[in-house]
Amino acid sequence: MLQHPCTAPQAPPTMKSGLSFLIAARRCEIDELDQLARTSELVGVIGRLVHALQRERGMSNVFLASQGGRFGEQRAPQIAECLALEQAVRAGFDQLEAENHRGVGPGNGARLFSRIAWVLPGLDALPALRRRIDALELKPAQSTAAFAKLVAGLLSVVFEAADGATDPEISRLLVAMFNFMQGKEFAGQERAFGAAALATGHGDEARRLQWLHLIESQERCFQVFGDFSGSAVLALWRERQSDSVLAELERMRRTGAGPGAPDAALSQAWFDCCTRRIDAMKTVEDRLAADLRALCDRKTAQARSELQAYQQLLDTLAPQTHGALFFDDADAQAAAPAQFGRHLERSVLDMVQEQSQRLQAMSDELDTVRASLNERKLVERAKGLLMAHRRMTEQEAHKMLRQTAMNQGRRLIEVAESVLSMADYLPAPDRAPPPLR
Amino acid sequence: MLQHPCTAPQAPPTMKSGLSFLIAARRCEIDELDQLARTSELVGVIGRLVHALQRERGMSNVFLASQGGRFGEQRAPQIAECLALEQAVRAGFDQLEAENHRGVGPGNGARLFSRIAWVLPGLDALPALRRRIDALELKPAQSTAAFAKLVAGLLSVVFEAADGATDPEISRLLVAMFNFMQGKEFAGQERAFGAAALATGHGDEARRLQWLHLIESQERCFQVFGDFSGSAVLALWRERQSDSVLAELERMRRTGAGPGAPDAALSQAWFDCCTRRIDAMKTVEDRLAADLRALCDRKTAQARSELQAYQQLLDTLAPQTHGALFFDDADAQAAAPAQFGRHLERSVLDMVQEQSQRLQAMSDELDTVRASLNERKLVERAKGLLMAHRRMTEQEAHKMLRQTAMNQGRRLIEVAESVLSMADYLPAPDRAPPPLR
Repeated sequence: MLQHPCTAPQAPPTMKSGLSFLIAARRCEIDELDQLARTSELVGVIGRLVHALQRERGMSNVFLASQGGRFGEQRAPQIAECLALEQAVRAGFDQLEAENHRGVGPGNGARLFSRIAWVLPGLDALPALRRRIDALELKPAQSTAAFAKLVAGLLSVVFEAADGATDPEISRLLVAMFNFMQGKEFAGQERAFGAAALATGHGDEARRLQWLHLIESQERCFQVFGDFSGSAVLALWRERQSDSVLAELERMRRTGAGPGAPDAALSQAWFDCCTRRIDAMKTVEDRLAADLRALCDRKTAQARSELQAYQQLLDTLAPQTHGALFFDDADAQAAAPAQFGRHLERSVLDMVQEQSQRLQAMSDELDTVRASLNERKLVERAKGLLMAHRRMTEQEAHKMLRQTAMNQGRRLIEVAESVLSMADYLPAPDRAPPPLR
Repeated sequence: MLQHPCTAPQAPPTMKSGLSFLIAARRCEIDELDQLARTSELVGVIGRLVHALQRERGMSNVFLASQGGRFGEQRAPQIAECLALEQAVRAGFDQLEAENHRGVGPGNGARLFSRIAWVLPGLDALPALRRRIDALELKPAQSTAAFAKLVAGLLSVVFEAADGATDPEISRLLVAMFNFMQGKEFAGQERAFGAAALATGHGDEARRLQWLHLIESQERCFQVFGDFSGSAVLALWRERQSDSVLAELERMRRTGAGPGAPDAALSQAWFDCCTRRIDAMKTVEDRLAADLRALCDRKTAQARSELQAYQQLLDTLAPQTHGALFFDDADAQAAAPAQFGRHLERSVLDMVQEQSQRLQAMSDELDTVRASLNERKLVERAKGLLMAHRRMTEQEAHKMLRQTAMNQGRRLIEVAESVLSMADYLPAPDRAPPPLR
């Protein structure tokens, strides 16, 4: 004899209800926000280390160019500051790894850790680099390039943090911050390039083009920073860019890029002007870092108070929910008739629907913010293609792309797109290539 | 007196090296793969529950249409099967939540849990629904709509699992599987729609259009399934779609969509033909689930063996690494000269670079696979917009979009895009809307 359907065993009520998963979803968001707060903190420390390294790079440059005559004394405290910040950054990296062991690591852990794995040998190699600078064994350009490589590695960690953020508002701020830091780094490279150019004199079309490239790269970064920043930070940024410094900068850019005799005084004036500008940038960067912290705190607090409200509702509802309203709008009143607790259940269904729509909207917004990071990813992909198919180092691939952009007066991203679209025409790689598309 | 830079304190060697983070990145990937294996397992169980519910829906439909005359006996064992599978699905949900507590939950936990929160009240409401069917209190169409809503909720969990997958190969299979399951559900809806249409007779342009819509929706799903499937599964799919069943189906579709007298025999023949087709689909779905399991196992094993290789290298290298080669290609030999262990360090740098490029390529591939899910997201967004601005239920919003698509002979996605682009023209929502974009 067959059992009548209605007496068949039903799911035991001990199993978790829909509301528990509403809460679980909220808890996931809180975990992600906590994690983002820690990553954001690390980004702030990386920003300070990058700034210190940029200063050390500038001093080392002058130290080497003057054959040890200048900045010898100032280098030591600057290096001490770098070391202290390096310690803080390393501790932040280690903490991230420890959290990952505890299962509360970042969502894009693999890529973030891979970036960290890339930059750590650079930090390990700093003492040897400094010894060679002490011994005047390097040319200024070599020293500058080495520091630039290390800074690029640190910025790629920040980039990954921005790309992995799961909250669109925080992601916006991280994208703004990454672009500001990258723009500031281009400004630092321009400072070194211009100082060397003015000190050696002459100048040709190649110099003019490279200088222009550094200016354009900066401006594009600051453009994206502006697009993703709030009005308060933008006002600070405009205020800090004093008109007199900007006017002086533009005048020296115009004259410096053309031909001219070596001029140590002009080189020094250029360096000082750029330094004032970069130090002003630092205050904007500090403000961004503070805003980021405040935003993380605010979002976490809000999510926690919402979680509490859910939990209270769960305690009220637990005995009454049987999903009676689920089928209400499925063509007709297909399920149970009106009963006690109906309005509470309706509010739970509404909450689930609102949560789901909010999460979807967040995900859409996140896609939009992340799209701004695609430009860099395309350039990275084009570099990878060149490295695989033409056996280039990353440095060589980057130089080739940049050179092509300068020669053809195109943007780096355009050249990268051309390279990627021409992938089939490149010579086959002679060793097994990474799986590029 | 200032300290000489070279005697300044250095980062202690106890801090983690680049290679540790190479390993940490690999470990993240393994965690994600383990997690994907569990989610994939759940997707398989959901597929079986959906199939059982589709059968129950079909039986309930005939049971109600025949005023309890037919399928009364077969319903009981079918319901028992549904209950057993429901238990398994609920257990899978609970396990996911428990894992999240342990910090090994899915990356897109919030959205996945939100979908589960949405569908659980539907499972809770099933006993009441079945009681009303027993009591013949519902029309066939009401019962069918209720089951369809529940199945849609279960499929949205599968959708989220596919959208959250972090490995492109697994993501491809999940996308294929989601689309196959969704296509099969449209086939089930067509079975119910056609059976009712043939049993009641007559037929007009509206019926023809709705039938056409169900056919087109199916075909689009199977198209995406085909795009993302391997040749072996595709061969099975072609083999299982026997030509004779397909020919019979097409003939009945052609005659059924037009006007005609009520024909119980034809309705039964239609139902049987559709059922043969849907049961054949089930074997393809089972194969997809098995492939998914095998893929997860293979990928996890591969990642684990690679991790082991890294770990061995770490043991060999630990005392010798000082990042000596980091600056090698930064314009010149800026760091230390050649030394013992150099080739090992080179191989570590190569590994880091390869890992980084592989992760980037994976991420690019993932973006491509996920793009195929955007169509559904756009429709969801358009629905949300209508719900907020026109105070519609989800069901009403979906109906309105579908109706517009049918009337205008356009695809659902095209109508959704129009709605989204017209967002500014919609009446302002009278209550605070969810943050739609």
